[in-house]
Amino acid sequence: MVQIAIDAMGGDHAPRAVIEGAGEALARYPRISKLLLTGPQALIESELERIGLKGDERLEIVHTEQVIGMHESPAAAIRAKPRSSIAVAVELVKDGRARGLVSAGHTGAAVASTVLKLRTLPGIERPGIATVFPSPTGSFLLLDAGANVDGKPKHLAQYAVMGEIYAREILRVPSPRIGLLNVGSEAGKGNEQAKQAYDILSAMNGINFVGNIEGRDLFNDTVDVVVCDGFVGNVVLKCCESMAKAFRDFLRNLLSKNPLRMTGALMCKGAFDEFRTLSDYAEYGGAPLLGVNGACIIGHGSSSPVAIRNAIRVAMEAVEHHLNEHIITRVRELGIASTAKSGNRAERDRQCGAAAAP
Amino acid sequence: MVQIAIDAMGGDHAPRAVIEGAGEALARYPRISKLLLTGPQALIESELERIGLKGDERLEIVHTEQVIGMHESPAAAIRAKPRSSIAVAVELVKDGRARGLVSAGHTGAAVASTVLKLRTLPGIERPGIATVFPSPTGSFLLLDAGANVDGKPKHLAQYAVMGEIYAREILRVPSPRIGLLNVGSEAGKGNEQAKQAYDILSAMNGINFVGNIEGRDLFNDTVDVVVCDGFVGNVVLKCCESMAKAFRDFLRNLLSKNPLRMTGALMCKGAFDEFRTLSDYAEYGGAPLLGVNGACIIGHGSSSPVAIRNAIRVAMEAVEHHLNEHIITRVRELGIASTAKSGNRAERDRQCGAAAAP
Repeated sequence: MVQIAIDAMGGDHAPRAVIEGAGEALARYPRISKLLLTGPQALIESELERIGLKGDERLEIVHTEQVIGMHESPAAAIRAKPRSSIAVAVELVKDGRARGLVSAGHTGAAVASTVLKLRTLPGIERPGIATVFPSPTGSFLLLDAGANVDGKPKHLAQYAVMGEIYAREILRVPSPRIGLLNVGSEAGKGNEQAKQAYDILSAMNGINFVGNIEGRDLFNDTVDVVVCDGFVGNVVLKCCESMAKAFRDFLRNLLSKNPLRMTGALMCKGAFDEFRTLSDYAEYGGAPLLGVNGACIIGHGSSSPVAIRNAIRVAMEAVEHHLNEHIITRVRELGIASTAKSGNRAERDRQCGAAAAP
Repeated sequence: MVQIAIDAMGGDHAPRAVIEGAGEALARYPRISKLLLTGPQALIESELERIGLKGDERLEIVHTEQVIGMHESPAAAIRAKPRSSIAVAVELVKDGRARGLVSAGHTGAAVASTVLKLRTLPGIERPGIATVFPSPTGSFLLLDAGANVDGKPKHLAQYAVMGEIYAREILRVPSPRIGLLNVGSEAGKGNEQAKQAYDILSAMNGINFVGNIEGRDLFNDTVDVVVCDGFVGNVVLKCCESMAKAFRDFLRNLLSKNPLRMTGALMCKGAFDEFRTLSDYAEYGGAPLLGVNGACIIGHGSSSPVAIRNAIRVAMEAVEHHLNEHIITRVRELGIASTAKSGNRAERDRQCGAAAAP
């Protein structure tokens, strides 16, 4: 049985979409014993009333008035608002009242407060945001998607291990193929960071490292896990989202240009619906922040109730599958555990300023 | 009147597609006085015979047997094959027999031999590959797309100026909006390179710098010129190409699932053709390598004859519009000209190893 904290005020459509998503998750996943909703009590209660869940014993409201806006500076916001809805959700995990948390709010603030309060796992220096990318042949996992924009080569190696475990335990890929995102496929390609990361990854016996992959391999079913620096990963993620949406809109305009096309498009409606479902990133289930103590899932800012429900499922599965325990064991096994004391202060301070935009 | 050297052996469909494209360019652009085709004489002659252009006085073959393959290491290949078709094309520009060149071959080899032999423009330390990205609202220019994978902040500022001039002179955008690709839109976001580049760009009076842009702004008509490091730019370019193709293929599969959809799709054929034209990067006209002495255009490896013809047009326009003279004047005017001696040896050697994969 799993308890999960939910930042009820996180996201463009909060609290409405978050609370609807929480309700859907409760209905669908009986293994969730409780969802703890953080935010203003009265507001959350009125939303719960609207969907007929006020008083549900598997829901608990943890009141707080403070909310971090999408355009606040993460470091300043977590200092100025120690009782923000995201900070309170993190506290619930720290205090053991929840095993994981979901927030579709300010990504930078979520990363910073999670790292500050929960600290990184033993052996892991920096957490990474792992994002599932839809692809016509299935999907692939990319990390880091923006937790850490000045990643060192050893951080990239740690992402590889965390990505491997996530792909194996949650996405059910038996022996995940891991690729390093680079500008060419041969060894020796790339900038200094990529060259050194390649050397570390090549020397790691036991992982299925297929070598460098290029941007053109991403949607080709070449790998299951794509490892890259958080700067590159964040740009790639947002760029793919934006391109998918722009091309859907463009196609829609082309199809409404004349009555013949409009009739034809109606006949193909099923195909376009499937296309949209595959290519709409906002529908996906949230990205785990791997490498911290707790199952922390970061939802897309424009998360729908379905996306929130999926994010809650991901948090639940991460807990049930003992994801973090697997990661700790695996980094030790592979001999790439950081020797630095986990979550030391200077490291945490750097981390707080590093996260990408929400 | 413009003379342009063409690497007849460059690209996946060379020499056939290259020579057909050259023929089309001659027919369409009477201002081209001569195209100099580099490669094996007999092979090129037989291709010219096939398309009825053997003996055309606006075509000249410059014989060489050596060709650099797509998977050779650029630095090693240009040393081992001093008379490769790309190297000979570059020599023709150096000797003044051509004002520009087009190659759809090995990008790294083209960049390296161009920088080595033609050197960078006064005031420019590193050249950048500028790529036009199609977008539903028009297009935008991104640079660097992979000439230089360890760019310094000042290189990014030089790309901004070269991109501004290219957008203004060739793409006819009166006052190009320039954005720095980053992980968030606020000042102070990003890795060290991006933060410093932001500071330099913000301090440049006279350019239309709109600030940081995110991956999600790329296809939103937010800017005309996107500036980024060559590592990031190369990954983004290949990723967008790959995604566009994957999603077209996926849509095609969805539309052929049943007879109703197939009939509807036929009625929409015009729309799908337009969609394909917009989203097929291989059809675009080649990417200029900005910042070197000469008009060097790098074609996509899978260039069709139309793409080659367009690349030749871009080279012709770069010459006719005195692009390089404008760049030299502009970097002086803005006070960001490098103080290092242009194209010094150590700098060139570093450059040779830096270019991204073809």
